[in-house]
This record gives sequence, structure tokens and C-alpha cells, in this order.
Amino acid sequence: MAKTNPGRFFEDYSIGQVIDHAVPRTVSGGERALYHALYPARHALYSSDEFARSVGLPASPLDDLAAFHIVFGKTVPDVSLNAVANLGYAEGRWLKPVYAGDTLRSSSEVIGLKQNSNGKSGVVYVRTRGTNQRGEIVLDYCRWVMVRKKNIDAPAPETVLPDLKTVLAPEDLVIPEGLDFTNYDFTLAGEPHRWGDYEIGEQIDHVDGVTIEEAEHMLATRLWQNTAKVHFDATFREDGKRLIYGGHVISMARALSFNGLANAQMIVGLNGGAHANPCFAGDTIKVWSEVLDRAETAAPGVGALRLRLVATKGGAPFALKGEDGKYRPEVLLDLDYWALIPR
Amino acid sequence: MAKTNPGRFFEDYSIGQVIDHAVPRTVSGGERALYHALYPARHALYSSDEFARSVGLPASPLDDLAAFHIVFGKTVPDVSLNAVANLGYAEGRWLKPVYAGDTLRSSSEVIGLKQNSNGKSGVVYVRTRGTNQRGEIVLDYCRWVMVRKKNIDAPAPETVLPDLKTVLAPEDLVIPEGLDFTNYDFTLAGEPHRWGDYEIGEQIDHVDGVTIEEAEHMLATRLWQNTAKVHFDATFREDGKRLIYGGHVISMARALSFNGLANAQMIVGLNGGAHANPCFAGDTIKVWSEVLDRAETAAPGVGALRLRLVATKGGAPFALKGEDGKYRPEVLLDLDYWALIPR
Amino acid sequence: MAKTNPGRFFEDYSIGQVIDHAVPRTVSGGERALYHALYPARHALYSSDEFARSVGLPASPLDDLAAFHIVFGKTVPDVSLNAVANLGYAEGRWLKPVYAGDTLRSSSEVIGLKQNSNGKSGVVYVRTRGTNQRGEIVLDYCRWVMVRKKNIDAPAPETVLPDLKTVLAPEDLVIPEGLDFTNYDFTLAGEPHRWGDYEIGEQIDHVDGVTIEEAEHMLATRLWQNTAKVHFDATFREDGKRLIYGGHVISMARALSFNGLANAQMIVGLNGGAHANPCFAGDTIKVWSEVLDRAETAAPGVGALRLRLVATKGGAPFALKGEDGKYRPEVLLDLDYWALIPR
Repeated sequence: MAKTNPGRFFEDYSIGQVIDHAVPRTVSGGERALYHALYPARHALYSSDEFARSVGLPASPLDDLAAFHIVFGKTVPDVSLNAVANLGYAEGRWLKPVYAGDTLRSSSEVIGLKQNSNGKSGVVYVRTRGTNQRGEIVLDYCRWVMVRKKNIDAPAPETVLPDLKTVLAPEDLVIPEGLDFTNYDFTLAGEPHRWGDYEIGEQIDHVDGVTIEEAEHMLATRLWQNTAKVHFDATFREDGKRLIYGGHVISMARALSFNGLANAQMIVGLNGGAHANPCFAGDTIKVWSEVLDRAETAAPGVGALRLRLVATKGGAPFALKGEDGKYRPEVLLDLDYWALIPR
Repeated sequence: MAKTNPGRFFEDYSIGQVIDHAVPRTVSGGERALYHALYPARHALYSSDEFARSVGLPASPLDDLAAFHIVFGKTVPDVSLNAVANLGYAEGRWLKPVYAGDTLRSSSEVIGLKQNSNGKSGVVYVRTRGTNQRGEIVLDYCRWVMVRKKNIDAPAPETVLPDLKTVLAPEDLVIPEGLDFTNYDFTLAGEPHRWGDYEIGEQIDHVDGVTIEEAEHMLATRLWQNTAKVHFDATFREDGKRLIYGGHVISMARALSFNGLANAQMIVGLNGGAHANPCFAGDTIKVWSEVLDRAETAAPGVGALRLRLVATKGGAPFALKGEDGKYRPEVLLDLDYWALIPR
Repeated sequence: MAKTNPGRFFEDYSIGQVIDHAVPRTVSGGERALYHALYPARHALYSSDEFARSVGLPASPLDDLAAFHIVFGKTVPDVSLNAVANLGYAEGRWLKPVYAGDTLRSSSEVIGLKQNSNGKSGVVYVRTRGTNQRGEIVLDYCRWVMVRKKNIDAPAPETVLPDLKTVLAPEDLVIPEGLDFTNYDFTLAGEPHRWGDYEIGEQIDHVDGVTIEEAEHMLATRLWQNTAKVHFDATFREDGKRLIYGGHVISMARALSFNGLANAQMIVGLNGGAHANPCFAGDTIKVWSEVLDRAETAAPGVGALRLRLVATKGGAPFALKGEDGKYRPEVLLDLDYWALIPR
């Protein structure tokens, strides 16, 4: 019996199948510090325990995206080791903050399957849940990936396409227990702009840029225990390049959006996201945002903004797609998320 | 209203103005471990809780320079985003050690202004204070930077030049409460040399060298939440180079000085410092020190050494300035500080 | 008196000499997180406090190899600063797990000396012990290095060759107190293979590869406070290359062996090891293992596997030595160790 994990192929998935992913992970101040070293993260709620307490939380949580990457990383050996492409995300919800000392695990349920017309691959839809040591779900999201078949002759499964929301409604969002922005300190947070200062349709050029290094994306991707060979092994692709984990671009983009969205503190919903083009070491990431929607919430002083976050490698701000409707070649990421901001 | 921070220009500063800087930061064992990964730091007091307790402290503090970088980093968006040059430091004093769990914030007061004769820029002097979550000042220092004017026609402010000490007197230094070197373990610290073994005028070639990498200086500079574009964005300068944060050179130089100054445990005073030439990835940093002065202190067994710390990129030791009185081209840093050492 | 450490030369060692190494180190969650960022480490026992508790330990320990590197790093200034080569290891035993908050120190005893026939150097054998803050020995191993003489005319010492075991017997291994694999969760650990599934002689190609970066090996080597110039200073060797610390290759190889040996959780014995060829940045490390022996232990559900771990830079799996009996040029590491695995 071969001892190494060959990963699952398209024909290995079935509707309703639940996969408990391996390697639970306890986080500490170490993961928090590394997140701040890897990304120019400056949102005060994730930087200062005192600031977090001033808005009703017991301490500064692990960055929402770090929690996402940890939960996601565990799924890679079971879901995307033989993936051709990571196609999309939907219905991502952060349900509980993650604190130092928490232990995360994840599991995925297969919620959709569709064999491609070429018969060589298919699309697998999973709903992944991240759980803490008390069994509380901290994160819940869907993603779909194209996976190769190993045995071309394996019969096509019945096509099941999950009914996924293209956008989470404001009432779908879960506000962390106790969160209260009524005494929010805008000076310590870094910017004066509150919920009411952002208009739907408004676009923000976040100005700053970061040039990506091999060592950094590998440190990050390993930290999340993501094992996809293509990120680490320069001999894996014919062009000798290491493909950068899409989540590294997401975190870099989110951190860079601080300059203009310093008060968009917590991410609570992921409506969708596309890794429009691959990112490689040497690329300089710049980002822009667009306000897609606004909503009130039931929590005191807390509003929500639906934001588009676009990362480019050196492109001009606000250009997204060409006349052909396809992403422009310099666009790396198009992310659609809900964030909480003081009203 | 533009949402991003354009930084302040020379005409935006006024004498007596107090700027509370954003993004407080809680430190943990994560920052300590990263400091040891980024620099060859070996001073026992910062490496071992047990050693720190043996000299009267409750635990091993965060490295003094890490505390400096955190306090400094917060000032960048408000003080040096439009700076042409970081001109100098004075009267830097470490007043309280920083421990895991502490939360730091900083504020700066404008204490000097002088428009340059060209009318296009001016020098801004600030006194910056770093404060912990109990409101105790942990660090206090002055620096001055040359800042561009945005509006050339803005009237020149009245020139005010602060009266800054070129050297802190021994009685200005604050010894951490409880510090007692009478039972100091020289074997665990790594060298037998005590206060009395260092003579004024003595020069030490620290022998070791480290070649600088892009990934490392960016990890460090982000960790301190320093946002200056020039450190991160390879497209920012015409030559495509990323300028290395001067504080990265300071920490690298200090750590390299362990070999010969292993017992110069705590930095308590910064008399001055010049970033003589820019540092870029690929430079190999070597350092030498000179004993400038010696002083006794009131704490048991604790002496103080005033040290010059010079970092070069491959220069011969002990050469500092040319015949023209200017720093030699290979000199990166000339730092003047007070450190505590067992007597 | 020169202040810097020149290191010891061959004539400075004598049989029975005990050297207490400097710079004790307290570890925290920071070191754990960094270990996971630097290496693709996924063994569940070192990743999750909850998993560690489920097998009878109080929390997730620091990775065994991180403990080894910390203890080893302290010996470098005293043992291998003037070493020509690191020749071998024997009788390495992990005696106590290391937990966050523990402070490690190390000391070495000279147990063997043999001057080389050329009269210019000699082999020094030491037994090194790592101790925690309670004085408990956590690690004990022998290594031997070739060290230059400073004074060629110094008389040769009497040759003493220590009687070292080439392989630790199963009864030499120390099982951590309380370890109990009877309720081991194979799903969370990542693989179903237990002790009985591995046969003596079985070979495993671990498939994955990692390309090595300068920044990463220097971060790691500094984290362990290993000061050997050759790892950090690109101007030190004539070819301008930085030689990668052999321990970096050991940790990378062990982490890569997860894929096929996910349940070989704890390293308890180091029988021997050879750094067959130097490793440089840009090399892509791949690894394979061979099962050399199996043993039962007295702890509930706990078996032991003796494993050969071979790291190569791009070589085909399972090739180790050429017809001349020498290691093939692509082989970097040949390690022989005992690991604990559920029966």
C-alpha cells in the first residue's frame, strides 16, 4: 500500500460526502506576530488587545484572513491537490473570532458535482467549516475547484449544482458577540472616515505597493499548512516559477487597503472572489476598492460595507476588465466582501 | 473627501502641536521570537526569562530596539511620509522595559521648525513618546526630519530650534527598577568582560557579518508597522531598489556587536545617530564599536558604557570619515548610545 | 585583551573538559509558529494542543528538532567556530519534551580527541546536554567535528576514541511520560498507517519538494542562535555562497517526510547522521525514507520505527551511494533516527 497521499480525483467525490481534514492547529501570539510581519496589517482591532477590549471583545483576535487561511490550508490535501483551478468562493461567513489558544480544525461537505464536457475533469463544490476546540463553527464558506479525473472511464456523476447566493444579505452576517463601536477611537484606528462617509459606487486608490518575495509567500503558505506543491517547488512547473498561493494575494491586498479603509475593521462575509491572473515573485501588488453596498446592523454603532477589493500587478487603478469582458492581464484578484465599520 | 492619508507637509506642522499616532500594538512571545529570527540577537537578558529574573527583572523584556521600532513605526504616517531625509536623533531614553502582553502607542510633539533657504522644504523636530497600557512612558526620544512643502507659497514659520543635548549625562539615564547585576552570570552571558575591562577610546572589531535580503528587511519593517513606501515597493524609486529601513541596520548592527559586547545588555540612552549612507539588499553588514565614555550608576553592580556603533558594508574597521569630514561611502550607520553592563 | 571570541582550536580541548555554553533561551508560541512557517511541518502532535492532550501530554511541545537546534546552536561558539567539518552524530536521545515557557541551556563534555596525521587539525568528540529551567536534561547527543590547530607545534593529545553506539537499542529510548496512543485519532493525524503497516526494508518516496531561499535559512539559523559565519556572510567563502546550516536541511527533510510518515510523531533517538554534500539557496529538496527497524515500547499503543531519512537536491529516490561507496553528489543528508508511532 502506497503510504503517500495521492489526493482525490474527480471520481472520488460524491454528493453529501463529508471529509474531516487533518492536522488541527493551535494558534498563539506567534501566528499573530507573523501575520504582521508578512503583511502590512494595521487594523487596530487586530493589533491591540486594548483596542479590541474598547470595542467589546475579550482580546485582539487572529486576523480574519489568517483564520480563513488556516481553515482553508487543511482542505488542500483532500480537495485541491489534483485541482486544475480554484474557481470561486461563495457564502463565506466568519461566525466567531479566533483567539490565541484556540485550536482549529476543518471539515468539508461535497455539495455539488458537474463533470466537464471533455470527460477529463469536473467541478467539485464543497462547503467547508472551521471549528474551534469547543466545537463552535468559526468560519463557513463554499468554494469550487476543477479537479482532474484519474480514470477517464469512470462514469460521470449526476450533475448537482448547489444554489449559492451571489451576495450575502446583511441579515446573513454574524456580528461578533459584544461588538460595540459606540466608543470607537478614530484617532487610534488611524482614520476619521465612518460608515456614513462611504458612498455606494465610491472608488478608493489605496496608493501603497508591495513587491513580493519568494521567501515571504512560502513562509505564509507553510504557516497555513497549505501543501500544494506548486507554491514551493521551483522544479514543478515547466517555467521554473513558483505560483503564489491566492490567499497570500488576498491578505496582502486587504492589508494594503488599510490606507483609506482603516476603519473597515472586521471581515464578516465573503460574497465571492476570483484569482484573475497568477501572481509570481517580483510582482508589485497595488490595490483599489469600490464600495458596492452599505447596511446597518443590530450591534451598537456597527455598520457594514460591501466592498470590492482589486489587486493588480502595477495596473492603473479602477480598471478591471477589458472590452471582451475578461479580467485585464494585470488584475490578480477581484474580491467581494462585507466588513464592519463604525457608524 | 480623499480617503487615503497624504501625509503631512512642512506647512502642516506648528510648534507645540501634539500628534497622537494610530494603531496601538500588543506584543507577545511572537514579536520576541521574530526579533531573534531577524537579527543574530544573543544578549542573554533578552533571550532567557530565567536570566532576566536572575538580574532582578520579572521576565525577559522585548529587545529595547524592537520597542524603539514599534514606537517609531507609528510616527511614520504622521511625521515622515513626505520626508526627504531622516536627519538625526537625540535624547533617546528607555524608561520602562516592555514585556509580552504590553500594548504600546505613541505620540509626538513638534518642538522645532526651520524652513530651508530654498523655500521648498524644512526641518521638523519632534519629541516622540511611547506609552504602555498603564500610561507609563516607556521610551522618549527626539528626531528631526526634512519634510517637503506642498504649497511652496505657504509662509515660513518662525524658526524654533530646540535645545537638545548632544550627549545624555549619566544622571539622565533611567535604570530599570530592580536591576541588580551583583549575581550576574558571565558564563551564561557569553563573555567575561565587565565594565572595568573597557577603556575609553578602546575600539572593537566585531568580526561577524550578515548579508541582507529583501524578504528579511521587509518582514522586519512591516512587523514594526512602518509604512514608508520606499522600503516595500520596487517600482517607487527610479533605480528599482528598495531602500532598507535605517532601523533594520541599527538592529542588525547592535546584534552583531554581541561578539565583544555581550555584557552590554540593556540600551538605556540614545545620544545620536546618523544613517550615513543608504543600505540595499545584497550589502554585507559588518560592525565595529568604540568606547566613548564610562559611568557608574546607583543600581547594584550596574555600570554604563557610552558606545559608538558603526555599521559598514564591507569597509575596514575603524574608518569613519574621509579627509573632507564626510562619512566614508561604505559607512551605513554611526550610532551613539548608552548601555548597561555589570561592574 | 581582545574582546571578541576567537573560538577554540584543537589544542584548546582536553578529555573530560566541560564547557557551559552561553545564552539560555526561553521559548514561546513564537518559536512554534516560526517553525511552522519555516518548514512544512504538519505532525499533529506539534500543531495542536488538543491533539497533544488526547495522547497524554499537557500541551503541544516545541518540535523535537527545534529543541535540538536550540541546544546545538549554543555549542557553535565553543565547539565548531573553527571547525573544518561536522563529521557525525551518535547516541542522540530526547529525554523530555520542551514546552512554551521553558528555558533551555546546554553544556558539552569533551569525550574524545584524535589529532590528524597531518598535524594541522584533529577530531573533537563532545557529548552535549540540553537542560531546562528545572535542571532536567531534555536532550543528550554526541557529535564530532574536525577542528583546526592554531599552533601547529602544540603537542598532540593522547588519542581517546569514545565507545559510541552506532544504533540506540529500543530500550535506550525514553518515552515521554504519559504518552498513550490508544485513543490516537488517525483522521486528525492525516494518515491511516500504523506501526504494523511499515515493514523493515520498506522505502517511501515522500514526493513533495521545497526550493530553498537565502532569507529562510538565515531566519532559521539565527532563531537557533547559531553564529557560524559561513551561513550568513556572502563574503566569507571565495565563491560568494552561503553554506546552509545542516540543521535546516534536517528540519526541512523531516517536515517533508510527513507525506507517508504522518504518524511517526515524535523523534526520540538520533542514531547517526551525515551531511553528505553542502546545500545552497536555489536547491530543491526532496526526501525519501527507509524503514530500518521496528520495536515495541512499554507505553500504551506506542511503537517505534527506526528510519533512514535521505534528502537530495533533485535526485531520484532511493539512490544513496555510488559504486565507489561514496554518497552520490545530489545527496544532502543521510539521517538515522527512531520515531514513535501508534501501534
